[in-house]
Amino acid sequence: MNESTQLPATATPATKKGEETRDRILAAATDLIHQRGFKSTGVADILAASGVPRGSFYFYFASKEELGCVLLARYRERQREALEQAFPLDAPVATTILAFFERSARAQAEGGCKSGCLLGNLAAEITDENEDMRRELAGVLQDVQQAMAGAFGAGQERGELSADFAPGAAADFVLSVFEGSILLAKARRDPRALEASVTMLARYLETLSWRAGSQAPTGKEGPA
Amino acid sequence: MNESTQLPATATPATKKGEETRDRILAAATDLIHQRGFKSTGVADILAASGVPRGSFYFYFASKEELGCVLLARYRERQREALEQAFPLDAPVATTILAFFERSARAQAEGGCKSGCLLGNLAAEITDENEDMRRELAGVLQDVQQAMAGAFGAGQERGELSADFAPGAAADFVLSVFEGSILLAKARRDPRALEASVTMLARYLETLSWRAGSQAPTGKEGPA
Repeated sequence: MNESTQLPATATPATKKGEETRDRILAAATDLIHQRGFKSTGVADILAASGVPRGSFYFYFASKEELGCVLLARYRERQREALEQAFPLDAPVATTILAFFERSARAQAEGGCKSGCLLGNLAAEITDENEDMRRELAGVLQDVQQAMAGAFGAGQERGELSADFAPGAAADFVLSVFEGSILLAKARRDPRALEASVTMLARYLETLSWRAGSQAPTGKEGPA
Repeated sequence: MNESTQLPATATPATKKGEETRDRILAAATDLIHQRGFKSTGVADILAASGVPRGSFYFYFASKEELGCVLLARYRERQREALEQAFPLDAPVATTILAFFERSARAQAEGGCKSGCLLGNLAAEITDENEDMRRELAGVLQDVQQAMAGAFGAGQERGELSADFAPGAAADFVLSVFEGSILLAKARRDPRALEASVTMLARYLETLSWRAGSQAPTGKEGPA
């Protein structure tokens, strides 16, 4: 992993109440930023949504940028377990990848395809002014990519997929399909790009396994 | 095409000079919005960049939102020819799709992967407040998707690819890969996601054509 995972320097509040307040600010900020974007979300909006008195924001965060970094670092921390569950190393990789897409397609459709992916939205929005956030964001995405790459690698080792592609490239590809189809669904307010991705990816994974069965470069027979 | 292509109601300036000024505003706005995003770009910034006196903005556009709609409608108009060139119906479809990705990967790498795709960025950024812009944007993306679908359909008719997938779904898939890998490249400031997409898509297209050759559902033999 090349990306820095350094946490911003603001101290964690010493008291339990302080910690709860900070959590409340972060939860409200996450929702607002997901709905409106980072730059359109003001500190005043975040405080109003979290019920925290004006003026206390800077007790918890040096800046909105720092809040963005802390938010992403926590997101990364909390998604670890979710990633292990979403991309288990011991399940058939095609099933794993397609189930991930199907769950996401359903979630996007249920939300009217309005909000997109928090990570993808931030990737689109951040500029050179947000270099610290960009590094945190790249770290979060790196963990997703690594979890996918792990599932691809394990599938190759079991002979489910042909061994002649790099698991990391496959993971970059699948993560690209994921972010891109959520973005199209958002622009159209219609989940059909996600559905098309499920169909076309299923076919892709099938051809990769078909090839493993018929042309396995290791000489092992993959499952039919 | 389901998307409305209605142009906003502001009249085109009657004089040549007025038209030039409006063009200058639109050109400056396009650059700024691509670099900074729509919501972070103020009317004052656009006027300063285009060298147009303050106060004259509202002579040309009823609002920044309307400028966004006009900008996208013009983008759509101007990309028509580019799409015909990028996705010719009479060239091998795999070559066409990969060349499009390779050009984009090169362009992104040359720009340090900083700006991403204007259309993708806007898709991520727009919310319910920007419904008119969203419709224009969906129309621009629709044209890209249609151009890709046309290339896939023509390739299938020539027997280059198997006939058992919908050209529209393939186009949604490829457009998703495109937008998603540009987004990842932007988050990482690194073009490797685009490169991985070229590699994995090449393989995908190869397996689709391989299948056409060996299992053509129409009974026709595709090229080897």
